[in-house]
Amino acid sequence: MSDDVKTAQASNAYAYPLLIKQLLHTPFAQAQEQEIVYRGQLRMSYATLRERIARLANGLAQLGVEYGNTVAVMDWDSHRYLESYFAIPMMGAVLQTVNVRLSPAEIAYTINHAGAEVLFVHTDFIPVVESIKDQLETVRKFVWIDEPGSEAPAHTIAFSNEYEAMLAAGSTSYDFPEFDENTRATTFYTTGTTGLPKGVYFTHRQLVLHTISLMAALAAPIAGQRFHRGDVYMPLTPMFHVHAWGMPYIATVMGVKQVYPGRYVPERLARLIEDEGVTFSHCVGTILHMLLTCAEAKATDFSKWKVIIGGSALPQGLAASAVARGIDVFAGYGMSETCPVLSLAQLPAGAEKLDAGEQIHLRCKTGLPVPLVDLRVVDDEMADLAHDGKSTGEIVARAPWLTQGYWKNPEASEQLWAGGYLHTQDIANIDATGNVQITDRLKDVIKSGGEWVSSLEIENLISQYEGVSEVAVIGIKDEKWGERPVALVVLKEGAAVTEEDIKQHVLSFTASGRISKYAVPQIVKFVEALARTSVGKVNKKALREQIA
Amino acid sequence: MSDDVKTAQASNAYAYPLLIKQLLHTPFAQAQEQEIVYRGQLRMSYATLRERIARLANGLAQLGVEYGNTVAVMDWDSHRYLESYFAIPMMGAVLQTVNVRLSPAEIAYTINHAGAEVLFVHTDFIPVVESIKDQLETVRKFVWIDEPGSEAPAHTIAFSNEYEAMLAAGSTSYDFPEFDENTRATTFYTTGTTGLPKGVYFTHRQLVLHTISLMAALAAPIAGQRFHRGDVYMPLTPMFHVHAWGMPYIATVMGVKQVYPGRYVPERLARLIEDEGVTFSHCVGTILHMLLTCAEAKATDFSKWKVIIGGSALPQGLAASAVARGIDVFAGYGMSETCPVLSLAQLPAGAEKLDAGEQIHLRCKTGLPVPLVDLRVVDDEMADLAHDGKSTGEIVARAPWLTQGYWKNPEASEQLWAGGYLHTQDIANIDATGNVQITDRLKDVIKSGGEWVSSLEIENLISQYEGVSEVAVIGIKDEKWGERPVALVVLKEGAAVTEEDIKQHVLSFTASGRISKYAVPQIVKFVEALARTSVGKVNKKALREQIA
Repeated sequence: MSDDVKTAQASNAYAYPLLIKQLLHTPFAQAQEQEIVYRGQLRMSYATLRERIARLANGLAQLGVEYGNTVAVMDWDSHRYLESYFAIPMMGAVLQTVNVRLSPAEIAYTINHAGAEVLFVHTDFIPVVESIKDQLETVRKFVWIDEPGSEAPAHTIAFSNEYEAMLAAGSTSYDFPEFDENTRATTFYTTGTTGLPKGVYFTHRQLVLHTISLMAALAAPIAGQRFHRGDVYMPLTPMFHVHAWGMPYIATVMGVKQVYPGRYVPERLARLIEDEGVTFSHCVGTILHMLLTCAEAKATDFSKWKVIIGGSALPQGLAASAVARGIDVFAGYGMSETCPVLSLAQLPAGAEKLDAGEQIHLRCKTGLPVPLVDLRVVDDEMADLAHDGKSTGEIVARAPWLTQGYWKNPEASEQLWAGGYLHTQDIANIDATGNVQITDRLKDVIKSGGEWVSSLEIENLISQYEGVSEVAVIGIKDEKWGERPVALVVLKEGAAVTEEDIKQHVLSFTASGRISKYAVPQIVKFVEALARTSVGKVNKKALREQIA
Repeated sequence: MSDDVKTAQASNAYAYPLLIKQLLHTPFAQAQEQEIVYRGQLRMSYATLRERIARLANGLAQLGVEYGNTVAVMDWDSHRYLESYFAIPMMGAVLQTVNVRLSPAEIAYTINHAGAEVLFVHTDFIPVVESIKDQLETVRKFVWIDEPGSEAPAHTIAFSNEYEAMLAAGSTSYDFPEFDENTRATTFYTTGTTGLPKGVYFTHRQLVLHTISLMAALAAPIAGQRFHRGDVYMPLTPMFHVHAWGMPYIATVMGVKQVYPGRYVPERLARLIEDEGVTFSHCVGTILHMLLTCAEAKATDFSKWKVIIGGSALPQGLAASAVARGIDVFAGYGMSETCPVLSLAQLPAGAEKLDAGEQIHLRCKTGLPVPLVDLRVVDDEMADLAHDGKSTGEIVARAPWLTQGYWKNPEASEQLWAGGYLHTQDIANIDATGNVQITDRLKDVIKSGGEWVSSLEIENLISQYEGVSEVAVIGIKDEKWGERPVALVVLKEGAAVTEEDIKQHVLSFTASGRISKYAVPQIVKFVEALARTSVGKVNKKALREQIA
């Protein structure tokens, strides 16, 4: 057949590689006057974005950046980051989004491991970079991001240029080249709780396919949250973390108004939601919780706000609080290795007739896989388990946007892709309507009295108890039962809740068979706060060490 | 970099070719109980569709069909056609959708040119196939589609099997292989008004990308028609024509209820829309016109129906009639060579405040290009024209789903892709909001008094005149002016409209400068019907010959 194909056309003029630059054809023609807002202070149009992307590429070319080089960015969520999402990969270079919450040593490790040649440094991160600059083995140029109003501390970093000065000097046009769609576009490091950070990476093809498929999934639901061309978008997942779930790419393709909040200060976020009319965001549960409980929140109108919660499961208690404030809240599921989105919770047709509890339950589901995602729940032999809503096993997946492996780590890559599917290490079931429900992380599973106890299910129950602000359930060793669950509970201010109250609350669900009596926590410990990872997830490893 | 990438993973387990089978992961898990309806008589679930796709593949394998073979289908719009859309390409074979409205000689030509080895023949097409069977050079197996209730005429075709019997004999599972995403999946022939039909063809990759990108575009508009998971879909563009605009693929990915109407009988279509609760369709203007004017239509509730009109421009008069019946009608744009969709008309935010005429105007626009479509309006030197809503030139395009060329026709392919863009031969302008407006076909352009006169614009004006049912405007040679426009008008039953009425109506728009006086038709000719091509478009070439 291929010979026939060759005779059928005289050239390969028709070839269309899936490159990030192709995402910009429609918004730059259709949304020229649409706004991009930074912190409520700076406003620019998509027409300006187009020019600034070209200016940035020209500035980087001036610094010697070429196809295959890596440019690392340390910035808060900003229009500059958005510009970097496009300009750097569109040149054929690789964008490294540096996790600024890692320790200085870890930051140095990731920049060296990625081999970044150029490093953008926001004023706030000058002290960190000053402390590690002698350890940076590959960086040959530093670019200063001079935030208006913030003052640079004394330092000895030899900046080649300042971001705005670099853009001002660059031309407003740049001939972005065509190259293989399998060219690497981005990289960043996962913040596992063990060992060194591991680099994941994504190609142009993968990012384009994630963008279009996720846009289709977000726009098509019957009811509930829908991201469409009339929305106003603000990320609340840091842009250094899995490209802020790839949503800035989707928002740009749609040509919607975009709001970038800088550093996450709860009061500022609440104000931006109201002042800028933000209607669509995504974040971890921690950020939503912080937002709802900050002083500014009382006076904020959240009723037009749709928000997807990911990173870890959405507790039903938190979802209920959000819905009570008029927020259209839903769970989403994915991980750094998966670009990230694999599934989205969705309300079915007629959901408005369901009772409030059932609606909350559906909003908190791991959800329905996005088009093109081949998501399976399998046993140890990689055999599919029944879609009965009960049989639990590991989620494995294929999709056109999963990392090929861990950067320069062939052993971990092979493990990740054992059997031809990416192993998520999440334990879940699937029901007859295709709805996925995660019950645990493989490494967080509690096995008590020979039974698997779902820590997420117990957390859900406790989260709904009056007076409970946050909760985490972990397993501790027990001679008789193997393991027993322990609940760490943060109470709302002034709440008078006892250990016995919580135990009785959980116990009350054993009668109906919803949970087994092994699931009743042996210990309930009241704490001030829960240990968290650098991306805001509850750090169960740290909690287990703390309790042990 | 490629060496680095190789060290980063131990295998290519992550590879995920864009194959049509990948579209089925989500609907087959999430919509098992959803219905597929044929003519209101046969109903089956997606779970059954899954089984029947496997049965069909097994049946074809039994007939000797292998990777690279071509299977041609002659059927009305049906669940069988939907099964063929999946099973045939998923085996690695090529689906040829035969245009059953071509002449017998043309049908034989296209089947031979495509090299089809297997031919499916619906009972209604037995006489045609009987008449050409000695001319078929490559077909070695015939499969009969025995429509319940219809009687097969006498014939001498040696059928190897009957469709339902073949499926009944096949297993409900089939291991659809993985292969290169650039494998050809479908082919069909364009029905140009000159020369032999030309074959266009699409790969798995192209069909998957068209499906996902168009789904994103259809689901994301601010206002107006939106295709989503709560819709009920019925095609009204034949499934032999550009895969019914690729919509059956999108409907299946969404897991919506699908209704296939068989042969297009206006009364039956109207009943199906109401009885099955159809909410989303697409067709040429002719079909919409036929539906609105059929006897059954008077009693039909169209108020939940969204319909996209393509194939040729949506006349404002027809759009107004549809809107008056509560139909959410919009234009879409594309052609056989483009898979087909390039753009969709969309209402902007706040459109509900616009006056009725302005809304109709926007519904009839050629529209906004779909994500990933690089659509340009260029002059003869391929230079971009200003986006001022005035400068007109040819539409050229790139997208990841345009035919590579014409099958086994390198010269025409080279012309099609001259300068690295596909040439549509449509003349249009683009405004500052990215909205495209076609003003003419290159070959239909009328040049009068040294000015280009838009036949579509004159047609729009005349279509809105009371009593006018349909209209076509063509150019005839004129010694003094070069060309002059002639209007061919079909009147509504009982309408008393004179040639002078129409001329005065058009003349009334010259005062405001909307059109020039060259645009006033020299002759207005009342006719019974307009000549049409086999896919229902007005055949201007035939009209010009008729008038000359």
